[in-house]
Amino acid sequence: MHPFDFTLEKTDPHTAARAGVLHTPHGPIDTPVFMPVGTQATVKALSPAELDQCGARIILGNTYHLHLRPGDELIRAAGGLHKFASWKGALLTDSGGYQVFSLRDISKITDEGVDFQSHIDGSRHFFSPEAVMAIEHNLGADIIMAFDECPPARANTAHIESAVERSLRWAARCADEHARLPAHYGFPQALFGIVQGGTIEPLRRRCAEELIAMNLPGYAIGGLAVGEDIAATYRVAAFTAALLPTDKPRYLMGVGTPADILEGIDRGIDMFDCVLPTRNARNGSAFTRNGKVNIRNAAHTRNFDHPLDDSCTCYTCSNFSLAYLRHLYMAGEILALRLLTLHNVHFYLELVTTARKKILSGDFAAWKSSMLESLQSKTIREEADPGLEVGSSG
Amino acid sequence: MHPFDFTLEKTDPHTAARAGVLHTPHGPIDTPVFMPVGTQATVKALSPAELDQCGARIILGNTYHLHLRPGDELIRAAGGLHKFASWKGALLTDSGGYQVFSLRDISKITDEGVDFQSHIDGSRHFFSPEAVMAIEHNLGADIIMAFDECPPARANTAHIESAVERSLRWAARCADEHARLPAHYGFPQALFGIVQGGTIEPLRRRCAEELIAMNLPGYAIGGLAVGEDIAATYRVAAFTAALLPTDKPRYLMGVGTPADILEGIDRGIDMFDCVLPTRNARNGSAFTRNGKVNIRNAAHTRNFDHPLDDSCTCYTCSNFSLAYLRHLYMAGEILALRLLTLHNVHFYLELVTTARKKILSGDFAAWKSSMLESLQSKTIREEADPGLEVGSSG
Repeated sequence: MHPFDFTLEKTDPHTAARAGVLHTPHGPIDTPVFMPVGTQATVKALSPAELDQCGARIILGNTYHLHLRPGDELIRAAGGLHKFASWKGALLTDSGGYQVFSLRDISKITDEGVDFQSHIDGSRHFFSPEAVMAIEHNLGADIIMAFDECPPARANTAHIESAVERSLRWAARCADEHARLPAHYGFPQALFGIVQGGTIEPLRRRCAEELIAMNLPGYAIGGLAVGEDIAATYRVAAFTAALLPTDKPRYLMGVGTPADILEGIDRGIDMFDCVLPTRNARNGSAFTRNGKVNIRNAAHTRNFDHPLDDSCTCYTCSNFSLAYLRHLYMAGEILALRLLTLHNVHFYLELVTTARKKILSGDFAAWKSSMLESLQSKTIREEADPGLEVGSSG
Repeated sequence: MHPFDFTLEKTDPHTAARAGVLHTPHGPIDTPVFMPVGTQATVKALSPAELDQCGARIILGNTYHLHLRPGDELIRAAGGLHKFASWKGALLTDSGGYQVFSLRDISKITDEGVDFQSHIDGSRHFFSPEAVMAIEHNLGADIIMAFDECPPARANTAHIESAVERSLRWAARCADEHARLPAHYGFPQALFGIVQGGTIEPLRRRCAEELIAMNLPGYAIGGLAVGEDIAATYRVAAFTAALLPTDKPRYLMGVGTPADILEGIDRGIDMFDCVLPTRNARNGSAFTRNGKVNIRNAAHTRNFDHPLDDSCTCYTCSNFSLAYLRHLYMAGEILALRLLTLHNVHFYLELVTTARKKILSGDFAAWKSSMLESLQSKTIREEADPGLEVGSSG
């Protein structure tokens, strides 16, 4: 078996939803899967032990942030990101493309690469397909993403088309460099391609077809959830997923709310990442099956008998009342951020785990409908902040 | 057996050090014991599960802070502080005396009590012996401290003498009110008296003798570590401890560094609390048996092979290198504060646990000498900040 084989266990008869297993050098990953975001070599506020207890089997690292601080060369000297962060599960690193194209002060974008300034200290750096492959080999994640050009949602057709062309040229250079570079830590790494093309279906098709011809072990859908309306996100995700090979995992980058994830699964997506569960937690917002809870709400002040979510089995909900969590949050206590983050990550992981069970039992469509109703469409789209913590939007 | 019986297991033949067991409604507590400080109903940055895993059997709550936020009436409605904070071990609450006498804007101190302003919102509050007993009964800690007057270290003899007189009158009123008030949560609470008297031995003796005549279940030494030199702290602690009954626990409030705690144990102290392990952690400072580690130090940048303390068995030292901890701290990650706090609390708890073993085996004096040498007298005295987190200085 190839180290990154994807075993498709079941396809839902009523939707495009799939249940599978993605094999990695750090263990098998049941799909659909949600990947918590660990921008700076830590999923904010959580320990590796807690992530493991929540059921996380793969987490994200951000190439842009880790290259700048502490530096990928330092992480290589530490023995790789797994060892540095003491994470025994699988890892995926983005390529930094989304970040460097989001930054101001980019002095120069050429076919060679992108020259940009650090948001930390203003120092200058250069990302090219070759440079990014070297960084991602130093970091040593199981899955590494190709370096791509990410145009903004408001870009015109010519801009999006040229970004697709460049992303394809860069994907080929990434594949060549990835093949040339050694694996530093005794296990192989899988290079995933990223389909760009904005909301223009012919460009998505062209990009997908050329990447598929490269026979990569997995494919991501990038450039969504960057400001377009949600109907377009869902439409393009469905359109693009249907173009991709059934025997490879499909990853929708940077998406999204619990409802977005259910809609993505419905459209044939296998992998997700998003900062919402962690970032919202630090802003006092918890996801529950009955919609979002704002822990600052005075209505919780004397609610001693209920946790965030009565049906949740996480450490937070098993031990602490809404009143206690509100007190901790209002008093500025770190434990508030920890407990809310733990709950939110647990909620996301349980959501995809349950989706998988429902796909396997043939009940996905009905369950999804009732779950969406329960979530009450309280979807909030949030912009990524490159200075803080960022998921991957390709 | 009385619920707060203190069993003295061994007294060291070479020093005044003692090993004992203090029984409480929430389990027996081996002494000497260190009590982590949980000012706002949480030991900052730690979960109750982590405290339990570190071996904490009793933690502190602060009456002043909890009265102001979320309010002791709210905590009573929640079923008491144990239930509110989901803490299954024992609890001790200070009386707030140290805080209200430290605050500016105290408009009026009379024999009746202290009228003061909240540091949070400027609202006015009144603490008297009776009011504090009502609050401490609402909070429901196993051990509650008498309301006392805490003069500053620079107070003159007349001021210290009048504070002793008033503290004795207030202790009697506390005992009366404590006897009159019901226990709200189905278990008894123990009222400890606090010996004041600054560094003036005749005043310490007078205060101790009158409190001993009240036959309280335990006695604290307050008003030390408030600015006097460390030799005076040790001298007065030794002098006062020797006055106290051997069959009752002795608690040195708000002390101190690891070296201070060893010196306190040497002088016959059984119980300690201090914010140093938690506060220093958040400032990037870790306690180890080889002295303090400043995690920001650039020397740790590429130290991948060593944890904070090679001989430590805590989660932090079992999993993370100095380089990783430094990266997390420099990047402003919450996990840095968590891991450093966990280590420091583990270090303090292991220090007193080891001291107890050495007392039982008759090796305390020799072990203490070598440990003090190892700690390299890197003792740093820090001022309490009533706005943040405060131990008890009586």
